[in-house]
Amino acid sequence: MKEKKHAVTYELLHEDKSTGARRGVIHTPHGDIQTPVFMPVGTQATVKSLTPEELKEINAQIILSNTYHLYLRPGSKLVKEAGGLHNFMKWDRPILTDSGGFQVFSLGELRKIKEEGVEFKSHLDGSKHLFTPEKVMEIEEDLGADIIMAFDECVEHTATYEYTKQSMERTTRWAERCKKAHKNIDEQSLFGIVQGGFYKDLRDKSLEDLIALDFPGYAIGGISVGETKEEFLDILRYTAPKLPKNKPRYLMGVGSPDYLIEAALAGIDMCDCVLPTRIARNGTAMTWSGKKVIRNATYERDFSPIDEECDCYACKNYTRAYIHHLIKAKEILGVRLLSIHNLNFLTKLMERVRIEIENDNLSNFRDEFYDKYGYTKE
Amino acid sequence: MKEKKHAVTYELLHEDKSTGARRGVIHTPHGDIQTPVFMPVGTQATVKSLTPEELKEINAQIILSNTYHLYLRPGSKLVKEAGGLHNFMKWDRPILTDSGGFQVFSLGELRKIKEEGVEFKSHLDGSKHLFTPEKVMEIEEDLGADIIMAFDECVEHTATYEYTKQSMERTTRWAERCKKAHKNIDEQSLFGIVQGGFYKDLRDKSLEDLIALDFPGYAIGGISVGETKEEFLDILRYTAPKLPKNKPRYLMGVGSPDYLIEAALAGIDMCDCVLPTRIARNGTAMTWSGKKVIRNATYERDFSPIDEECDCYACKNYTRAYIHHLIKAKEILGVRLLSIHNLNFLTKLMERVRIEIENDNLSNFRDEFYDKYGYTKE
Repeated sequence: MKEKKHAVTYELLHEDKSTGARRGVIHTPHGDIQTPVFMPVGTQATVKSLTPEELKEINAQIILSNTYHLYLRPGSKLVKEAGGLHNFMKWDRPILTDSGGFQVFSLGELRKIKEEGVEFKSHLDGSKHLFTPEKVMEIEEDLGADIIMAFDECVEHTATYEYTKQSMERTTRWAERCKKAHKNIDEQSLFGIVQGGFYKDLRDKSLEDLIALDFPGYAIGGISVGETKEEFLDILRYTAPKLPKNKPRYLMGVGSPDYLIEAALAGIDMCDCVLPTRIARNGTAMTWSGKKVIRNATYERDFSPIDEECDCYACKNYTRAYIHHLIKAKEILGVRLLSIHNLNFLTKLMERVRIEIENDNLSNFRDEFYDKYGYTKE
Repeated sequence: MKEKKHAVTYELLHEDKSTGARRGVIHTPHGDIQTPVFMPVGTQATVKSLTPEELKEINAQIILSNTYHLYLRPGSKLVKEAGGLHNFMKWDRPILTDSGGFQVFSLGELRKIKEEGVEFKSHLDGSKHLFTPEKVMEIEEDLGADIIMAFDECVEHTATYEYTKQSMERTTRWAERCKKAHKNIDEQSLFGIVQGGFYKDLRDKSLEDLIALDFPGYAIGGISVGETKEEFLDILRYTAPKLPKNKPRYLMGVGSPDYLIEAALAGIDMCDCVLPTRIARNGTAMTWSGKKVIRNATYERDFSPIDEECDCYACKNYTRAYIHHLIKAKEILGVRLLSIHNLNFLTKLMERVRIEIENDNLSNFRDEFYDKYGYTKE
């Protein structure tokens, strides 16, 4: 008898042998995703300020939404009643939900970690809640994303060896409980999250135990949490190549152009981050010639587009001067235009990254891009 | 020799003799406007939260922008450098700019009225400025709207007879100075503003003097400023029919459905108000069955559209439950969807009003609408 097919599968199209960069496709119940891909974040069932149509116009292939936030508001049962997250927010392409782990641990004083799970107080009203692996699976099944993440603990980059080890081992036990609790495997695939902080032997142990659990996809958690770029690259390049070749590889919480390129070079397929929409709200644009703070007085009388090389709605229609004015005047349209631009920049960057992988040229592209963008090379 | 044609002209298509309601067209350098019309307000060179394309989708024919705000930020000279307001904000249909009179007088303690003009302090940084009729004409010419308004004083509805008289006479003298100062008559038409508060003999005097100045269009100012509906209707019905029949008639600051219908019945062609976008930001929708506060808990699990009878983008795609969630979570998309809906409601209401006038039936429609919307009839 043939083995049951997972809801989400990975197809490798091309591998650059010299770097390990992968060009592939992730098949999901809501369509295919060309990888490597950047996933815009829609924390509260909306990618901040944008409509689904606008996300499609900039070729967003998949979005991420947050379990912790949706569980608290509007409530995962309400989303289920609405026919799931896709229907609730009218997004018919793939969705990934995180497990709430990162959010819950970010609550600091408001949470308490036990073997059973994590007790926490809502940041909205102080009400008490308990997230266990089983509870998180129930919530993520109610939300109905294509890819759901196992409940994990993300430790600080300053955590001790001993704490990181205990936490990583607990995360593995939670992953096992998640796998057992996850029922809706025909429509959703559960990914495991490799932890282990900045200790390579702990990363190895986490990899070994999680790979043994045979998840349909894997994420690397616990990096891009405040460490130096050198430390980030060290763990990324150590861990990513050890993930299974036949499954999607997801690096959590990465969205700056240099980190996205480095992730692809290390063989990562998926990344997500709030960065492009967050800096948009502060009046900042990513461009092919570096970051530009459109909010600054420099741009007050600048009647050129945000980025001459860009084809997004904002760049085709408006000037830096107009967007500068909108941001200064706290007008929503300013945030919208910069959000469209920044997300378009990252989806276009990843399109370019995919082409460069196909040509076995991503490493050279990285060097050229670093020069143009003003990044310092290693 | 033929008299020089004004930039903006009015064509009467049909008049309902029993009410005085008018169905017409206003011709402008940026295209025709079917009247009666509601004008969305784009205070700071943007109709809050929306793009020009979205405004066109809901069939906004003309927008209003505010001289006071644009003069202070980004500055009318900057807008001129950008090629005028149409080019700056990428709106190629007609624009009307107010004169800043209403805003300046709303500053209260921050302004001082003299014969020469009004001294005021900026609400942004406290800097000192002087608006004279000549200065306002210069600013409005720099902004480049199709219809520009004369600099006037809008008095409170509680103002004494003596003060209202003095103020109205000064407004007339300012109107004369505006007319003399306005140079760009081929591309812009200057409208006079009838004042006189709630004193009919003062309204008569204002009408007489301003009509003698032969402006290409007229507005009624100084009503819809906090008086009762009875007082509003009394002055509206007294003043509107005395305005020239061959020129556009504009009632300033009116945007609630009942006031819009009453204005049309009294023979008004144009109205504007921030109401539809302001209440959108508070989570409130106008519907064919009355006002609905979508922010209220009633709508938390309501999976129907805002208004079953509406064909706007928000109603075609989203539920009350989703919009309720977005508003509670302070997400921009919630404001966008309600703004689209409310503006679409008013443009559709005015389309209906135009049809009812053509059928000499606006009076009956008013009665039916009042019943459905939950308004109390006189």
